[in-house]
Amino acid sequence: MDYLADERKKAEFDVDEMKIIWAGSRHTFEVSDRISKLVANDPGFRKDNRTMLARKELFKNTLRKAAYAWKRIHELHLSEEEASRLRFYVDEPAYTDLHWGMFVPAIKGQGTDEQQKKWLPLAYKMQIIGCYAQTELGHGSNVQGLETTATFDPQTDEFVIHSPTLTSSKWWPGGLGKVSTHGVVYARLITNGEEHGIHGFIVQLRSLEDHLPLPGVTVGDIGMKFGNGAYNTMDNGVLRFDHVRIPRNQMLMRVSQVTRDGKYKQSDVPRQLVYGTMVYVRQTIVADASCALSRAVTIATRYSAVRRQFGSQNGGPETQVIDYKTQQNRLFPLLASAYAFKFVGEWLTWLYNDVTQRLQASDFSTLPEAHACTAGLKSLTTTATADGIEECRKLCGGHGYLCSSGLPELFAVYVPACTYEGDNTVLLLQHIFTRVVQYGKHFKLLDNKMSCGLSLLVLVARFLMKTVSQLGSGKKPLGTIAYMGKIEHLMQSRCTVQKAEDWLKPSQVLEAFEARAVKMAVSCAKNLSKFTNPEEGFAELSADLVEAAVAHCQLIVVSKFIDKLQQDIPGKGVKQQLEALCGIYYLYLLHKHQGDFLATSYLTPKQAALANDQLRSLYTKVRPNAVALVDSFNYTDHFLGSILGCYDGNVYPKLYDAAWKDPLNDSVVPEGYHEYVRPLLKQQLHTAKL
Amino acid sequence: MDYLADERKKAEFDVDEMKIIWAGSRHTFEVSDRISKLVANDPGFRKDNRTMLARKELFKNTLRKAAYAWKRIHELHLSEEEASRLRFYVDEPAYTDLHWGMFVPAIKGQGTDEQQKKWLPLAYKMQIIGCYAQTELGHGSNVQGLETTATFDPQTDEFVIHSPTLTSSKWWPGGLGKVSTHGVVYARLITNGEEHGIHGFIVQLRSLEDHLPLPGVTVGDIGMKFGNGAYNTMDNGVLRFDHVRIPRNQMLMRVSQVTRDGKYKQSDVPRQLVYGTMVYVRQTIVADASCALSRAVTIATRYSAVRRQFGSQNGGPETQVIDYKTQQNRLFPLLASAYAFKFVGEWLTWLYNDVTQRLQASDFSTLPEAHACTAGLKSLTTTATADGIEECRKLCGGHGYLCSSGLPELFAVYVPACTYEGDNTVLLLQHIFTRVVQYGKHFKLLDNKMSCGLSLLVLVARFLMKTVSQLGSGKKPLGTIAYMGKIEHLMQSRCTVQKAEDWLKPSQVLEAFEARAVKMAVSCAKNLSKFTNPEEGFAELSADLVEAAVAHCQLIVVSKFIDKLQQDIPGKGVKQQLEALCGIYYLYLLHKHQGDFLATSYLTPKQAALANDQLRSLYTKVRPNAVALVDSFNYTDHFLGSILGCYDGNVYPKLYDAAWKDPLNDSVVPEGYHEYVRPLLKQQLHTAKL
Repeated sequence: MDYLADERKKAEFDVDEMKIIWAGSRHTFEVSDRISKLVANDPGFRKDNRTMLARKELFKNTLRKAAYAWKRIHELHLSEEEASRLRFYVDEPAYTDLHWGMFVPAIKGQGTDEQQKKWLPLAYKMQIIGCYAQTELGHGSNVQGLETTATFDPQTDEFVIHSPTLTSSKWWPGGLGKVSTHGVVYARLITNGEEHGIHGFIVQLRSLEDHLPLPGVTVGDIGMKFGNGAYNTMDNGVLRFDHVRIPRNQMLMRVSQVTRDGKYKQSDVPRQLVYGTMVYVRQTIVADASCALSRAVTIATRYSAVRRQFGSQNGGPETQVIDYKTQQNRLFPLLASAYAFKFVGEWLTWLYNDVTQRLQASDFSTLPEAHACTAGLKSLTTTATADGIEECRKLCGGHGYLCSSGLPELFAVYVPACTYEGDNTVLLLQHIFTRVVQYGKHFKLLDNKMSCGLSLLVLVARFLMKTVSQLGSGKKPLGTIAYMGKIEHLMQSRCTVQKAEDWLKPSQVLEAFEARAVKMAVSCAKNLSKFTNPEEGFAELSADLVEAAVAHCQLIVVSKFIDKLQQDIPGKGVKQQLEALCGIYYLYLLHKHQGDFLATSYLTPKQAALANDQLRSLYTKVRPNAVALVDSFNYTDHFLGSILGCYDGNVYPKLYDAAWKDPLNDSVVPEGYHEYVRPLLKQQLHTAKL
Repeated sequence: MDYLADERKKAEFDVDEMKIIWAGSRHTFEVSDRISKLVANDPGFRKDNRTMLARKELFKNTLRKAAYAWKRIHELHLSEEEASRLRFYVDEPAYTDLHWGMFVPAIKGQGTDEQQKKWLPLAYKMQIIGCYAQTELGHGSNVQGLETTATFDPQTDEFVIHSPTLTSSKWWPGGLGKVSTHGVVYARLITNGEEHGIHGFIVQLRSLEDHLPLPGVTVGDIGMKFGNGAYNTMDNGVLRFDHVRIPRNQMLMRVSQVTRDGKYKQSDVPRQLVYGTMVYVRQTIVADASCALSRAVTIATRYSAVRRQFGSQNGGPETQVIDYKTQQNRLFPLLASAYAFKFVGEWLTWLYNDVTQRLQASDFSTLPEAHACTAGLKSLTTTATADGIEECRKLCGGHGYLCSSGLPELFAVYVPACTYEGDNTVLLLQHIFTRVVQYGKHFKLLDNKMSCGLSLLVLVARFLMKTVSQLGSGKKPLGTIAYMGKIEHLMQSRCTVQKAEDWLKPSQVLEAFEARAVKMAVSCAKNLSKFTNPEEGFAELSADLVEAAVAHCQLIVVSKFIDKLQQDIPGKGVKQQLEALCGIYYLYLLHKHQGDFLATSYLTPKQAALANDQLRSLYTKVRPNAVALVDSFNYTDHFLGSILGCYDGNVYPKLYDAAWKDPLNDSVVPEGYHEYVRPLLKQQLHTAKL
């Protein structure tokens, strides 16, 4: 029985067509649909017991699943695309993520042809398992601060890998703690007593025979992390080297080499791949954000339709929570954000292809803009997603606090995406940053002064300031920054909205977001010019600069959503729903950042109030479609991992049944009763052994 | 060695005096200091292994600690105040919290003298252990929706307690799942076929001999909750009744009775106690918020001073993270908020005494205002605290994701305070609400239409709207709402700030916050008046109303902080630091809600920018005092439970040592290697049993 059938009947659009829009293409939809069901129907991939397992059991179970997934991939002769989807739907962080996502790409990207020929076949068959050992106990975001050394010994033609201090211990790499046999280790290269910055080295860590650490290698797990299951399925590791020797040919030498006599040389290999990968990785992160947020929104939306609270009339049923405006005001902007991030992610795929093509033609002109805009979007979408998941948890009331709601796990697994260290794709990103810093003459903006945490937005701000400073020079701003070319118009223009519906005009909305972004950037530039030392100004004004960067990035998301709606969108009512969501997204931002819009005098308070009126009517428009809009994500109950979000809405019996599976319910009288509760009840505590 | 000694030397104020200000009095400081060290130095209370234990071990250990704490309290002949502090510093949710915090007070507050005489001595000696069984699987905030029935059987002079549906299962009560022998159970009273609303009953659940559930009672734990240790030390329970009979005299009959022949009667006992308790409970919640936030801020501040990232000059050390403006801009407002919540909590203590005194003199005039303002402050401080803890975690970078940082636990333990269900003190609060709804003719504002989640703020908004509507009637607004009396002045007045320092004038600041609050309330009232059905208007405009309520509550916090500074504050430099923190608190709010201030035209964009300039210079002023300002909270390392926040700042060696204690490091080769990793490496997966 479908307890949400009434909700589904209300939908005013073609859900099947929307599923294809969400997936990006019919093919992607078909593969995702098939593989997600395959995983969901295989008891070998069950995950509902994950939060009850102690660390060792949990980890052992993950090792089993990883091997089982690999076995199934072979048995079913899955294509690379299908295999990757299968790993995705298994939905459990594991050492294999690092092996495939970081170790293999590092060798592909930084290894010479010869190195690739030697190591990749081993890695592809998983005859060796690799990790990516970059961050250190005392050094996270700042790759240039790494302390591990790789000193060339010309006598033996070897590098000596060493951890000179406690803070130089490698710390965080996933898969390192207990599984990896090898690692790409980043270290400070020293030849002939001279330093040459950070480079990558392939280092064997454990014996392929008995899995014991090799001599000179101390390695282990760094301990429990946030959440119950979450990333505790992963053996994030600590690693110290005591003068470990590796052959010279295990330095990854594609972009720089050390010769037999210890000379350091830069190769003339083009850096294209590195630049392209940067955009590629960020696109993945934005897509991940849209996926995580849409999962949380699915749970919160379905449960808000199931849950009833207050408002009973004459003893009838209480009101569905989703009918409260306060609930809509918190939930629907997140639903809209999930779609917005999806489409900006799609656009990033286009950008990646565009950048790659240009690079192949040695056209570097769009790189600084692509770099800044992808950095900003990464920061914007991950922060909004982490906050959004937690908001969805709160929107589920008390039951959102139960692990069986799925939301605590989703939150705990997602949040590392905001803090860089611990998140593998971002480690790769950081690595690429280093490369960019090291080699990129096109990236003067990017330097060591990036403040922690918000570094990506500071980077965007630097790019904006540079753009503003060059506006007079005749250099025309390109791509996402093109609107800066209209600066004179935007600085003077005033919003012409007279009634609420005027806020549905895309041109009107774009101008509002452009005017806000330009005016904030110009205001920062003016304030910066008051400082004699620009770096000092940058440090002092960094909070304002970050706000200007956010305004710029929000404009990008809004404009890409609007662009999407200019495309041909088939399916009854699909376009109308997307238009309503787009409106919710930008009007919600407009209201949230009303201060910016008013401070720049683009809007009057009256016009801001009209925007808010229009936002409320869009909520009413989306309300009957809400459940169908989350159905369009096409997530299986297995993937969602949430009783509150289950497809059929049969929440309470499932919650009730799940409760009894907790280990604490193995016995009616709990362990510890006889030692610690009975003596208390019987007033015999003074003689009890505690 | 103290690695933060340099930071401590920088302090420009008397830390010992600040400790007394924070504690509230010299006496409170002395007791807290002594008891917290007693707990910290007793290995019986160690908690550093908590996140590594599986559920059963974790729970058993909590049973041990609860018994041990009780034993120590007796051995040391602790006073009631000291015993309560000891339980506080043990810092682990346990069934005893509910026994002492809910079961005993419910009997005291709702039981007749006779009932108290019978049950309280048993509870005081813990010869019975009680819980508070109110919320049900399908019914959280809305007490009036509870389904459990208590039907009077005049033939046997008994009540029959019954769970008629699955959704009527009691769900969430702490201590119920595995420990409690008794519960105060809330059920729908039925006598002679007539319903009389929700009442409390004392029901025995388990045998005092063998701890087995009594006939007709089905009881168990509801399963894992958010976080590693966190609330998983608590046996939140599920409970179903199958026609369980209890004697008539186990209905709590202080405010209403059922006679031998089944007649329902209201007593004439005064409701004072109930009203007073309401204010008391909320004061506790605000104090808890200030405590939780200050713990998180201590960790983030100390680690921000220890941690260095980027900015190395000529190979020197990198910059302390706390020196980045972006870090200060996120951290210092939280530090200021912790102090702000402390002082508004202190004021609530005063309010509690004031309300109690008035009630004793049958003066109900201040009740609606006290009710609205405490509701709003509860909502405001818990939301800001939950968000603030997570922000502190992010401010610690990647290492904040480790359980050994203490922040994941702090977050997971704290968040229930925002979502009502699951949080025990709030359950009490809800219970009192019910009482208030049931009996309080003074509370017409409070009705069943409270929207979920934000219900407390909606309640504040209703109070504001009522106040606005009565302004013409000559009724003078009192207490925290007194500023509404100046409405004509406030509606017209404009900010006179001309330079940044003008923002340091308290009168200027108060007027700004008052004008914003008044104008937002009036604007809502105007929009409401356009609806013919006020309830419809309230539903439609609820998001705006909530914003107006927030503005009102923020004004209260700001004004109480300013009031505090008018008091005599001894100690070198103490007052100056508090002034700087107060300035940070209100200027941060002003910037965050700039849209409100500008939309109401009280401020010009220029004046808002000046506020931001002043905020930045206050950061500079607080910076050298930051570590001393968190030292002033006087938390032991045991209580903080965080390696990142340890007093001596010796973070990295401690993190390194802690890693090796994870169970996964019990063996060098992990469990599961032979079954699941080796077959993979050796290409023997096809024959492996997975």
